[in-house]
Amino acid sequence: MATPTGRSPELRHDPVSNRWVVFSPARAKRPSDFKSKSPENPDPNSSSGNSCPFCIGNESQCAPEIFRFPPDLGNPNWKIRVIENLFPALSRTGEYPSEDQQRHQDHTAGGRSLKGLGFHDVVIEAPVHSVQLSDLGAGEIGQVLLAYKKRIEQIATFDSIKYIQVFKNHGASAGASLSHSHSQILALPVVPPAVSTRLDGTKEYFEKTGKCSLCEVRAKELIIDESTHFISIVPFAATFAFEIWIVPKDHSSHFHELDSDQAVDLAGLLRLMLKKMSTQLNNPPFNFMIQTSPLRVEESRLPYSHWFLQIVPHLGGVAGFEIGSGCHINPVFPEDAAKVLREVNVN
Amino acid sequence: MATPTGRSPELRHDPVSNRWVVFSPARAKRPSDFKSKSPENPDPNSSSGNSCPFCIGNESQCAPEIFRFPPDLGNPNWKIRVIENLFPALSRTGEYPSEDQQRHQDHTAGGRSLKGLGFHDVVIEAPVHSVQLSDLGAGEIGQVLLAYKKRIEQIATFDSIKYIQVFKNHGASAGASLSHSHSQILALPVVPPAVSTRLDGTKEYFEKTGKCSLCEVRAKELIIDESTHFISIVPFAATFAFEIWIVPKDHSSHFHELDSDQAVDLAGLLRLMLKKMSTQLNNPPFNFMIQTSPLRVEESRLPYSHWFLQIVPHLGGVAGFEIGSGCHINPVFPEDAAKVLREVNVN
Ligand SMILES: Nc1ncnc2c1ncn2[C@@H]1O[C@H](COP(=O)(O)OP(=O)(O)O[C@H]2O[C@H](CO)[C@@H](O)[C@H](O)[C@H]2O)[C@@H](O)[C@H]1O
Ligand SMILES: Nc1ncnc2c1ncn2[C@@H]1O[C@H](COP(=O)(O)OP(=O)(O)O[C@H]2O[C@H](CO)[C@@H](O)[C@H](O)[C@H]2O)[C@@H](O)[C@H]1O
Repeated sequence: MATPTGRSPELRHDPVSNRWVVFSPARAKRPSDFKSKSPENPDPNSSSGNSCPFCIGNESQCAPEIFRFPPDLGNPNWKIRVIENLFPALSRTGEYPSEDQQRHQDHTAGGRSLKGLGFHDVVIEAPVHSVQLSDLGAGEIGQVLLAYKKRIEQIATFDSIKYIQVFKNHGASAGASLSHSHSQILALPVVPPAVSTRLDGTKEYFEKTGKCSLCEVRAKELIIDESTHFISIVPFAATFAFEIWIVPKDHSSHFHELDSDQAVDLAGLLRLMLKKMSTQLNNPPFNFMIQTSPLRVEESRLPYSHWFLQIVPHLGGVAGFEIGSGCHINPVFPEDAAKVLREVNVN
Repeated sequence: MATPTGRSPELRHDPVSNRWVVFSPARAKRPSDFKSKSPENPDPNSSSGNSCPFCIGNESQCAPEIFRFPPDLGNPNWKIRVIENLFPALSRTGEYPSEDQQRHQDHTAGGRSLKGLGFHDVVIEAPVHSVQLSDLGAGEIGQVLLAYKKRIEQIATFDSIKYIQVFKNHGASAGASLSHSHSQILALPVVPPAVSTRLDGTKEYFEKTGKCSLCEVRAKELIIDESTHFISIVPFAATFAFEIWIVPKDHSSHFHELDSDQAVDLAGLLRLMLKKMSTQLNNPPFNFMIQTSPLRVEESRLPYSHWFLQIVPHLGGVAGFEIGSGCHINPVFPEDAAKVLREVNVN
């Protein structure tokens, strides 16, 4: 593909993340050379077989199971397990007082605090240690997505929970502490900052245009692929090089509105994107995140609240400038990244 | 020190960063065991002597010099050089049209773009390859801080520049691509998101209390140390484990208001914090960032705009949950981190 030589740096603002990103071709290698230096990036302490708690047969080494698929508890041949996290970031015990009761003002320059109550679960995506998510078929990946949905629906019954973040870490430098394929579900008693910011950004766009910004992301040069119900793109102001969004074509506010057909359809496109990314970028460590709307979001916000799945390969990038300013430098223009990902062939 | 066993998770909101942080003792090792696994973390491609462009004698391998200290250009024995970045994120050439002229609406779902004009400089902090910033004396570090100030004052004359971010990357996993001690100055045509968010957060606190939240950060259990003009603390809702802020005791909105005496005083406390962090955490990779106010900030905002220097050791931490939600998990309570840093002895 063509190198973006001679192009000038550009700042782009995205209504969804509501922030400016600096696009700096001078800092880019040719996008086609832009490969992970730490392919696969296996966890140095990675365990397998007997010593991995997520492997089939080692269920007793895990924190309690919430449910499994297929749902028959007596069946030792599970495909997916949803379990409690053994080292939860939030505690699931205790009363769930209302936010007003919990919050107290203290004397540290206006800092406020809140009891750390919530849920933190792990989804084991496959019984066998060496199988990665993209090795599974679309039907099987669809079941993983439906396991997220089922668990979200269970947690959504707790009034104190305001937002549920589903995310996957793959590879040590993307944060994975265990190499057995898994993802996590973290249910929070507050709406997190990225979500409030997104709602403000998409609201502003909606007020100006009468349209949902995510219904509109169809610029031809940014599209990678599409399926019956979904489109995959590199966003116009991508925060990270080769960042990918998979967006439902029809307006939908919450991920857990997904039905079984849509789950398999999404699974196929997700699998294709993971394979394309892996082929083009030398199997990089990555994260994916489901960007959904707060539980019980006000009805008036629904028209501009549109969920999507965000995939971020880790090719290096967050250092002093980004931590300090919240602004990111992306060396690869989204239209170049989209072209590369569109054209790469996978089997 | 005491382990924080038996403590429950807690969410804390900080008015300065204006976000919630999840404190999760279950995810912590004992803070005293909380050491970097990649001490020093030297860049695998680190060069020295003849091949490092930042070493004394290799000036011709660098992008153009802006100024040096001591300021005599004929003197080959420089102590500090401020040079242009050879791979700038923003381009310094071209006209500087007003933001309104630059900004154009396009058809990618409301994304806007802006020409990438600005300045991106490198500050070489010492002539010799093996000398790190904290190896220098307070007087010498003070000169580095005064070099930042001088360059900021030069750039501030350009009306198009809205914010100047000074930052330092130390160690490969904190983003440093060269091991020779250096920092960077990036001048932007927009106010970056973290800065707008900070102004909103400190404004809210000011409107409620009539006070500047950063003038108020003096909770005893969070203090590490102090000098004549500065105080060093672990913030109440620290985003990162063992994050440190050095805050001017007297209200001051812009870093570049610093005078020579204050520079040496700040340098001494900065040096002490870097040495304490290095001793306690096994010489971790780190970033520091100068968090200042936008250039030409409205007068009405000055009462709650207070600059500080933020130091962040890299002990792992940013993965799918943080990227997705903008919320961070910190396994170490700030009062525990402050105690450890207060008590560690350095020579
Ligand atoms: N001969 C020469 N003359 C002049 N300048 C030279 C030079 N050789 C190299 N340089 C410049 O020196 C700088 C050294 O900076 P660092 O090592 O602190 O981080 P870098 O900017 O590479 O990226 C890190 O910091 C940025 C900003 O936080 C992140 O975007 C990125 O991912 C992370 O790796 C580079 O910017 C480089 O362009
Ligand atoms: N026997 C067992 N039973 C049940 N659960 C078990 C278990 N053994 C381990 N676990 C849990 O399994 C999870 C595996 O998660 P990951 O490897 O994706 O990342 P982790 O949460 O460790 O941290 C990464 O992701 C978080 C969130 O993004 C970041 O804060 C962090 O820095 C990054 O390393 C861990 O949370 C762990 O507590």
